[in-house]
Amino acid sequence: MTLPVTAEIIVIGAGTAGLAAVKQVQKQTDDFLLINAGEYGTTCARVGCMPSKLLIEAANAYHRRHCFDTFGIRHAESLAIDLPAVFSRVRELRDYYVSGVMKSVHALGNRVVTGRAKLQSYNQVQVNDQIIQCKKIIIATGSTPIVPENWKTLGNKLLTTDSLFEQSDLKSRIAVIGMGAIGVEMAQALSRLGINITAFSSTQQLAGLTDPEVNQSIHHLLQAEFPIYSGDKAELSETANGVLVSAGKVSVEVDQVIAAIGRQANLKHIGLECLGVPLNDEGIPEINPHTMQVADLPVFIAGDASSLNMVLHEVADEGRIAGHNAVSASIEHFCRRTPMRIVFTDPEIACIGMTNEQCNEANTLIGQALFEDQGRARAGQQNKGVMRLYADRNNGRLIGAEMATPAAEHMAHVLALAIEQQLTIAQILAMPIYHPVLEEGMRTALRQLQKQLPTDKAFDLSRCEAFHSEALD
Amino acid sequence: MTLPVTAEIIVIGAGTAGLAAVKQVQKQTDDFLLINAGEYGTTCARVGCMPSKLLIEAANAYHRRHCFDTFGIRHAESLAIDLPAVFSRVRELRDYYVSGVMKSVHALGNRVVTGRAKLQSYNQVQVNDQIIQCKKIIIATGSTPIVPENWKTLGNKLLTTDSLFEQSDLKSRIAVIGMGAIGVEMAQALSRLGINITAFSSTQQLAGLTDPEVNQSIHHLLQAEFPIYSGDKAELSETANGVLVSAGKVSVEVDQVIAAIGRQANLKHIGLECLGVPLNDEGIPEINPHTMQVADLPVFIAGDASSLNMVLHEVADEGRIAGHNAVSASIEHFCRRTPMRIVFTDPEIACIGMTNEQCNEANTLIGQALFEDQGRARAGQQNKGVMRLYADRNNGRLIGAEMATPAAEHMAHVLALAIEQQLTIAQILAMPIYHPVLEEGMRTALRQLQKQLPTDKAFDLSRCEAFHSEALD
Repeated sequence: MTLPVTAEIIVIGAGTAGLAAVKQVQKQTDDFLLINAGEYGTTCARVGCMPSKLLIEAANAYHRRHCFDTFGIRHAESLAIDLPAVFSRVRELRDYYVSGVMKSVHALGNRVVTGRAKLQSYNQVQVNDQIIQCKKIIIATGSTPIVPENWKTLGNKLLTTDSLFEQSDLKSRIAVIGMGAIGVEMAQALSRLGINITAFSSTQQLAGLTDPEVNQSIHHLLQAEFPIYSGDKAELSETANGVLVSAGKVSVEVDQVIAAIGRQANLKHIGLECLGVPLNDEGIPEINPHTMQVADLPVFIAGDASSLNMVLHEVADEGRIAGHNAVSASIEHFCRRTPMRIVFTDPEIACIGMTNEQCNEANTLIGQALFEDQGRARAGQQNKGVMRLYADRNNGRLIGAEMATPAAEHMAHVLALAIEQQLTIAQILAMPIYHPVLEEGMRTALRQLQKQLPTDKAFDLSRCEAFHSEALD
Repeated sequence: MTLPVTAEIIVIGAGTAGLAAVKQVQKQTDDFLLINAGEYGTTCARVGCMPSKLLIEAANAYHRRHCFDTFGIRHAESLAIDLPAVFSRVRELRDYYVSGVMKSVHALGNRVVTGRAKLQSYNQVQVNDQIIQCKKIIIATGSTPIVPENWKTLGNKLLTTDSLFEQSDLKSRIAVIGMGAIGVEMAQALSRLGINITAFSSTQQLAGLTDPEVNQSIHHLLQAEFPIYSGDKAELSETANGVLVSAGKVSVEVDQVIAAIGRQANLKHIGLECLGVPLNDEGIPEINPHTMQVADLPVFIAGDASSLNMVLHEVADEGRIAGHNAVSASIEHFCRRTPMRIVFTDPEIACIGMTNEQCNEANTLIGQALFEDQGRARAGQQNKGVMRLYADRNNGRLIGAEMATPAAEHMAHVLALAIEQQLTIAQILAMPIYHPVLEEGMRTALRQLQKQLPTDKAFDLSRCEAFHSEALD
């Protein structure tokens, strides 16, 4: 295949960020190339968000049987998990999601080039031994699970999310190394699917939580499902039957290991050194998060490759910003969204806005809600976990939240909108909260904050003028 | 028991509104009496929100078995429902919720009087043949399920929510008359628990929906679970084995009937005629929803008794407003919350802000999201339903929503906060929406609205000044 010798824009990487960038580029020009090495279909759909959620949905549906007898549903003990069938559905629907992505890729026709790209300069990219001259470059090469060099000898005894969902069955004893978002999700899901899971975390913080109360709560709840050894770095050594995992004083032999110790940007072989800008230890230059530009070069890095925030909605934003700026007359700055992370454990974990660690202790008020005795949660046998909300003492605004509660993925969005809009606790409390819902737990935490703030209100509602109220009637 | 001859405030009814009123009154005075006839424990906890949700949780947990095989969970066919056990748990937890209410009642000590109250004038209440002089009266006597006079002869063949949760078992064929919130909830839950349900609705609108698309969607989904005959008024006649329900051309014999045709305020015997203000056909005077006051009298009506909005959070607000104004130096007006109704079917039904019917067609834009192919919904086998959002064409603000979708109870709260804060669609779209979540379906509807509105934005994010962005870094 002969490539054109010039293209106005070159986008490297056909993942979420790259495709989002292309969509913006297309608004201005068709003179672009999308270069992709490796598999198509996005990290999210192929090996990330979607297959993991499919596994979790099956695991949680099966786990729910422990509530059945209390509800009055008999013979839950007859239920059995068919792990090959579970994985088969994971792949079937994953393929469906991937096929959706592929439609957008195919629609780009011969603008898509399969090949490995390497920068020669800020306006020259080498693709499959050809040099293409261009005006702007967008690098969106994604990321890869981190696997230490000496673990690679373990062969198929070592899994990552790249290989996990390809399994047709799993061995009975599995260690999950790393208790970040991916680690806790996979450990709990596989444990609930009947795998004998042992989890290792080098830190005491699970899933990136910084609030000690929330961290302790979820740690306690997960520990009841599978052992978690935290605080020491895990070392692996192969045995005849499997792998010996050692961390501190603990040694556990397992059949397989899932490495979930993080993801690294795919920037190693992309040729960034030719740009003449400083690179950090991971080979990443400084990137402006509001423009996605590298220094003042016509080069943009977006998505997991930027390492700024490896969550899909941020990755898509970065692609849009980079794509927009690549075809814009001048570089434009964009406001980024309120930070938000959700981890799909049960109970779910969510962090929104400022973390506990980021809050200035002297200026921060904390409101808390325990879900153990929350009415609706109890009705649904989901009564566990804790929510902690942070407010600015000086202006009464909600500034952040950390939680491990049922339906955290939903309440996180209410809180995110409130933080994004810089609302005060009093403003949030003016909204209706239905009954009986889990959001009443959130209101408990909000009211606890409100009690610590000065107010002239007798309760949630604001006074209004009589003539105004007549108009509303 | 001898009653005092005077009390500054008399609150009639120890339900949600009455207790909320007392809480405000207590901030100013201890010279009050709370008069209660009938059962203690609130409609919500005894026979409303809580027992219904307990029944629904069991029903939905059992119904979920139909998804098991697809997930890879085998032998769902072995599961069986133990209806007496289901009802037994409903009552057990209901009693727990009621006991929570009773704690607040008992804490009031001898301020609580059991007896039937009747107004003699705006400052005289007769209780158990004694007359008590008072300065202010708060009427919070609640409501009762409507049962037409000629249905009462059916004895225990006729159930309402007052008697339903007292059953230890149910007959196999049950008709539910009335497809409002309570009717659809109970019909679906009992059908899922194995009862042969036939539903009747005098109108085509289910659960108060006014958006024809949403109504059609939920009608279609519920019809797949049990027959719904709508458009004709149901007539009942007793048969040897049960009850014959006739509506239009349809006649169905059932064992029992659940009447769910509405609730009426308990104001008949309270003596309102002594106030000298006009009463409507249902015996209710005009009540200012911002003060809960009746005309300019020292009399307030709050909660279900006001018939303004028989949902718990509004009822509690009315109690607070009435209680506050009863002890306030002058009557204060309070802003009421954004309207919100949630019906706990599956998928859930929610209406927030203005209904489709209330929206001015010429000024309203509609954004829609179908959940049949929504990614996360599909992963969880919950992919059904539709959300419709309404925006004001002139100012770009979200003004209302109707939906029947999975997790509507949660998304309703995001939308309610947005409407309460009078946010524009563009402002809402600046919030983070995680992936993969059902809220992405909501975003689809929001973006569909945004496309119909004028904007200078390339995508969701706002441009910001470079210096501003530096400050944020």
